[in-house]
Amino acid sequence: MKLKIVCGQMEVTPGRPDVNFPKILKAIEQARYLGADILLLPEMCVPGYLIGDLWEQETYLDDCEYYNEEIIKASQGLCVMFGSVVREAGKLNEDGRVRKYNAAFAAQDGKIVGGYWGHDYVIKTSMPNYREFDDYRHFYSLTKLCAEEGHDVVEALQPLELTIRGEKVRIGLMLCEDGWTENYYLNVPQTLTEHGAQLLCNLSCSPYTLGKNHKRNRLFSAQAKQAGIPLVYCNNVGIQNNGKNIFTYDGYSSAYNGRGELITSAEIYTECFLEFTVDTVTGAILPTVPVAPLLEEPVSVYKSLRYGTELFLKQCGIKRMTIGLSGGIDSAVTAAMYADILGPENILLLNLPSQYNSDTTKNLAYRLAQSLGANYGVIPISQSYEHTVEQLSTTPITNFSTGASFNLELSTLIKENIQARDRGARIIAAASAAFGGAFSCNSNKAEISVGYATFYGDICGALAMIGDIWKYQVYALGRYLNEVIFQREVIPEDIFTIRPSAELSDAQTVGKGGDPLIYPYHDYLLRSFIENWHKTTPADILRWYKAGTLAQEIGCSKDIIVASFPTPADFIADLERWWRLFAGFSVAKRIQAPPILAITKRSFGYDHREAQLSPYFSREFYQLKEELLRN
Amino acid sequence: MKLKIVCGQMEVTPGRPDVNFPKILKAIEQARYLGADILLLPEMCVPGYLIGDLWEQETYLDDCEYYNEEIIKASQGLCVMFGSVVREAGKLNEDGRVRKYNAAFAAQDGKIVGGYWGHDYVIKTSMPNYREFDDYRHFYSLTKLCAEEGHDVVEALQPLELTIRGEKVRIGLMLCEDGWTENYYLNVPQTLTEHGAQLLCNLSCSPYTLGKNHKRNRLFSAQAKQAGIPLVYCNNVGIQNNGKNIFTYDGYSSAYNGRGELITSAEIYTECFLEFTVDTVTGAILPTVPVAPLLEEPVSVYKSLRYGTELFLKQCGIKRMTIGLSGGIDSAVTAAMYADILGPENILLLNLPSQYNSDTTKNLAYRLAQSLGANYGVIPISQSYEHTVEQLSTTPITNFSTGASFNLELSTLIKENIQARDRGARIIAAASAAFGGAFSCNSNKAEISVGYATFYGDICGALAMIGDIWKYQVYALGRYLNEVIFQREVIPEDIFTIRPSAELSDAQTVGKGGDPLIYPYHDYLLRSFIENWHKTTPADILRWYKAGTLAQEIGCSKDIIVASFPTPADFIADLERWWRLFAGFSVAKRIQAPPILAITKRSFGYDHREAQLSPYFSREFYQLKEELLRN
Repeated sequence: MKLKIVCGQMEVTPGRPDVNFPKILKAIEQARYLGADILLLPEMCVPGYLIGDLWEQETYLDDCEYYNEEIIKASQGLCVMFGSVVREAGKLNEDGRVRKYNAAFAAQDGKIVGGYWGHDYVIKTSMPNYREFDDYRHFYSLTKLCAEEGHDVVEALQPLELTIRGEKVRIGLMLCEDGWTENYYLNVPQTLTEHGAQLLCNLSCSPYTLGKNHKRNRLFSAQAKQAGIPLVYCNNVGIQNNGKNIFTYDGYSSAYNGRGELITSAEIYTECFLEFTVDTVTGAILPTVPVAPLLEEPVSVYKSLRYGTELFLKQCGIKRMTIGLSGGIDSAVTAAMYADILGPENILLLNLPSQYNSDTTKNLAYRLAQSLGANYGVIPISQSYEHTVEQLSTTPITNFSTGASFNLELSTLIKENIQARDRGARIIAAASAAFGGAFSCNSNKAEISVGYATFYGDICGALAMIGDIWKYQVYALGRYLNEVIFQREVIPEDIFTIRPSAELSDAQTVGKGGDPLIYPYHDYLLRSFIENWHKTTPADILRWYKAGTLAQEIGCSKDIIVASFPTPADFIADLERWWRLFAGFSVAKRIQAPPILAITKRSFGYDHREAQLSPYFSREFYQLKEELLRN
Repeated sequence: MKLKIVCGQMEVTPGRPDVNFPKILKAIEQARYLGADILLLPEMCVPGYLIGDLWEQETYLDDCEYYNEEIIKASQGLCVMFGSVVREAGKLNEDGRVRKYNAAFAAQDGKIVGGYWGHDYVIKTSMPNYREFDDYRHFYSLTKLCAEEGHDVVEALQPLELTIRGEKVRIGLMLCEDGWTENYYLNVPQTLTEHGAQLLCNLSCSPYTLGKNHKRNRLFSAQAKQAGIPLVYCNNVGIQNNGKNIFTYDGYSSAYNGRGELITSAEIYTECFLEFTVDTVTGAILPTVPVAPLLEEPVSVYKSLRYGTELFLKQCGIKRMTIGLSGGIDSAVTAAMYADILGPENILLLNLPSQYNSDTTKNLAYRLAQSLGANYGVIPISQSYEHTVEQLSTTPITNFSTGASFNLELSTLIKENIQARDRGARIIAAASAAFGGAFSCNSNKAEISVGYATFYGDICGALAMIGDIWKYQVYALGRYLNEVIFQREVIPEDIFTIRPSAELSDAQTVGKGGDPLIYPYHDYLLRSFIENWHKTTPADILRWYKAGTLAQEIGCSKDIIVASFPTPADFIADLERWWRLFAGFSVAKRIQAPPILAITKRSFGYDHREAQLSPYFSREFYQLKEELLRN
C-alpha cells in the first residue's frame, strides 16, 4: 500500500517536557492536516536525551509520562510514533532506582499499537555507552529485560501491525543505536525485517559530528538494501549538553528506498516536516523534496559552530558577548563569529595591551573591530600588572613559627600568568558583566590539548566555541568568514600570516618569536592522541616514525617533520614534552575549562573523559626510543 | 580443609601498571613467606580502575597484559587471585573497540586455574553504571558474553577448583559489584554457592563513602550467612579520580565466617596484609587481627579528607599550599587541615582585606595563622579594586558602527565579584605559584549547590577539599580539629559563632549582616536535592511541607522552618529561589569548578552528572503551590 509519512524534525528542548509537549501537539495537528498516515517524531522528544542525572528525579518522570499519555490521546486520525522515557513500576534498574526504558510509542486514534508482553511500547535494544552516551546509566535494554524474564530477545523483536485505511501494514520501529548495527551481535533492523516488517523506522536523537552523515548514509543505505524495504530516519534538531560539552543536532531526517537509495532528506539544522510517500509493495519512495547536499569543511564547521553557539546563547539568555582581542587568529575568528551571530552592536571587543604587545597586533585588533563595526575598547594592563608584582614581591610574609619575615619572588612564568589572569579575570570578566551577557573562551583544540593557556586567564568564559577545532581549521574558518559570510576582508590578511604568539614576554612578541607549538605538525600529532578511534600514544608515533609512515598516519606533511626535527633525539624530546602535557597537567586545566562546543569525532570534556594521572609511556615506547637513539 | 589466606590490601596507582607490578611481585613474595595458600589482590590492581578513557589506548592494554602474564608466572608455591583488564582478540565491544573484560585471574604455581570456554579468567557479571562508575563504557560483562555465545550465564558461574596440599577446594571468585546483589536479577554469590563453592572471594576496587562500610557489612554478612560459607572481601587503598571527583579507597578488607559474622578486618586507609585461616569444613575463620571499629562522623570525615588530600597532593607533586583566609569557618577549617597534612611551615595563609572586611574577621584570620604557626601575609585589595573600577568605568568604548563612545557602568554585584576575583585570580593564584605549589578552593557543598561563589574568584584552585561536606559538617570538623587533632583552640572560638558572611559589601560585613543561606535549613534542603537516592525536587518538598513532615523528611529541625518562613508564600519564594540556582546557573559554575574530594553518597562532579538546562518545576509543584497560596 501507499503510506503518506511525515517526519517531524522538531527542535527538542532537553529538560523541558512542558515546552516539547505543545510542540508535539502542533506537529500532530499539522501532520493530520497534511493527510499523513504516520507521523514520526524523534527519540526522547518529550524529556530530551542529554539531561544528566535529571533522570533520577521521580517528579520529572511523572510529568514525562503524563505528557506521553496526552500525546497518545491526541493521535486521532493518524498514527504517531514518538520516543520518550517510560517507567515500569515494581521493577528496578540495576542501581536500585525505578526501572526506566528508552522507549518508542506507536499511537493510533488515541490508542497504543504494539509492544511486548506487558509493555505497550518498543524498548531500545542496543545501548550506546561511548563518547557522550551513557544509556546503561539510566535505561534498561530490551536484551536485559528478555534475559530477566526468560524471553528470547530475537523473538521479541517483532514489527508493529498497523491498520491504515483498512489495510494491514507491518512497521519495524527502532531507536537510534538499534540501527547502528556494526558492533552488536544482534542486528535489530534485519531481525525486524525477517519477522515481516515492510518498512523500517528509526527514531533518533543523534548528535552532529563532522563526517557522521556520510557514515550514516552508507550504513543505513546498506541496511535498507539488505532488508529490501524502505528505511526512514527521523532525527531532531536543537542543542543538548552534558555540562562539559554542547552537542548540536542537525536533523537530516532521511528516507531510503528498498534498493538502499537515499531519496529525500530534511534541511539540516532546521525545524521542519519531511513529507513523502512510501510504497510498501515496490519499496519505492515518492519525495516532496530532494536530498539536501552534505556539507564539507569549512562550511560544515561554520554551520555547526554558528547554530550551536546561537542556540546555547539563547538558552542561557546571553544576548551580548565580550571577547578579548589579541590581534591573533583565534580571537579574530571568535569575534567575527559572534558578530555574525549576535550582530556587531552586541559584541564588545577589548584589546588589553601590556608592554609586550607589538604595534602590529594592536593595530590588527583595532582594524578587525573597525571592520566588524563592533564596540571596541583598549584597556592597558600595565599599571595593574606592576601593582600586582609590586604588592606580591614587597608584602612581608611572616613565618609564625620562627617570627621571621620574607618576601615572595616572582619568576618569568609567574609574571606571564599574572598578565593573562589580569586580562581574563580582572578585566574581561567584569567588563562583560557591565556590558551585559558573558565572555568568550578563545582557546583552540591544540592549546586545550596541551594546556597552553592560563588557568582563570584564557581558559575561562561561558563557552569555548572553537575549543573542538584545530588551528588549521581555525584558519580555514577565518578564510570562509571573509570570503563567503562577510564577503570582504573583515579579518585583516595579516592576522592569517603573522606567527601565532601569546605576547606575554619580550621573547614572544610578534616579530620576535611565537608559540612553542608548530601547528602544521602538532595539530595532527595531538589530533591522533584524541580523535583516532584506537587512541594513538607515543609508542605508536615512534613505531610510525621508525617505519617512515608517520606523516601519512597522522595526516600532516612529511616536510614539516623533517624540517622541525633534524635528529631522532629532537623528535623524541618534542614528543615526550607534549605527551607529558597532554596526559598530565593539561588535564587539570580541562577539568576547570568552560564547556566546549563538540563537533569532531572526539571532543575534550564528557566526550573524551579523563582522570588526572601521571603521564604514562609504555614499554614499547622505551624500547623504540632506545633503538632510535642508538642508531 | 584449613586454608591460609592473605588479603593484599595494596595501594593501587591508577594509570601506572609499571608502579603496581613490582608492588604485586613483592606482595606475592611476602605472602609466600607467610605461608599463604591463597593471596587475594584487589580488582584492577594492575591498571587501576578510574582512569577515564585511557582504556582506549591499545599500548596501555599491551602493558597491562604483559604484567598480567608476569604475575601469573610469579605465582610459584601459592595461588594468587588478582583483578586486571583482559582483551579478547578478534572480538569487539559494542563501541567497535577491542573487547575488554574486567577480569580476575587465579594463578597457581605459574599456571592459570579455572575460567570458561576459551577464557581462562573470571569475568565480572554485574556492571555498575551509577554514580562514578561507567563499567559498560569499557567492559563487556559475562552476561553479554553468554548471550552472544549462546551459553547460559547461570551455568557459566562455576567456582574454581584448586588443589592445595593435595586437597581439592572450590572457590567462588567474583568482582566487586557481583557481590552487591540487591538489584540484579542474577545473584552471583548464591549461584556460585549452589554450584559448590566452599569459600566466596570478592576482589574489589570500591571507593569510600560515608556510611558505606556499614551497608557492606550488612549485605556481605547476610550473604555469607545465606550461603553458609565464609566470604572474603579484598579491597585496595589509595585514591583514584575521574577528573571532577577524587575518591578515596579505605580498604577495610574483611572476612565473614559461614554464619555471617565479621571476624577480621584490615586497618582502614593502610597498605597492609590481612592474614587469617579459613576452615572450609566448619566455615570458621581464625583471625590474626580483630575487627577494626567503624568510624563515625566527624572522625570519618576527617580521616577520609585528610587521606585523600594528602595523596592527591603527593600525586600532583604539590608540597605547599596557599589558602585565602577570610576569618570565616570554611577557610579556617581548610587552613587547619592543610597545616595538619603538610605542616604549618608549608602553608601560606593570605588575608586580603577590602574596606568591607570587619576588624573582627581580620583579627580572627591573624589569630588562626598565629596559632597554626603558618606563614601569613596581609595583602589589601583596595587599590587594585579601585583601579579596576576606575579603568572599567572611564575607558571609552567606541561603537564602530556609529562612531559614538560610551562608558561601562558597574553595578553593586559586579563590584562584589571584582573583589572576589581580585583575591582569587590576581593575588592568590600568583602568590601560590611564588610560594610554590598550589592554592585551595574553600567552598563548601552548600555554596557549591547554589553557586554562592564567584567564577574565578572563589570557585578556583587545585582542589575543593571541603566541597563535598555541608556547612554543619564543616563546623563539626573544625571542632574535631581543635579538640582531638590539635588539642587546643587553633581555630578561635569566635570563628564558630560569628554569622557567616562574604563581606563583599557594607550590608554583608560581619556584625551587620551575612550570607543569604540559612544553613541549619538550607544545608538539609539542598542535601535532599542531591544526596537522596530518589532525587528530591520542589514538588516533594511542598508535599512534605503541606503534610507537616518536611523537617523529618530532610533531617533538619522543625523550629528553623517555622522561624525562617512565617507564611507559605515566604517558604515557597525561598524554595523557588534556591531551586532556580541549584538547577540553573550554579551548574555553569560547577562545570568550571576544581575537582571535589568525594566522600558523601553523592558529590557534585562526575558522581552527580549535570547538563546546563533551564530549571524545571513539575506540574505537581504548581498544583501544590496554588493550593498552599490559596489557603
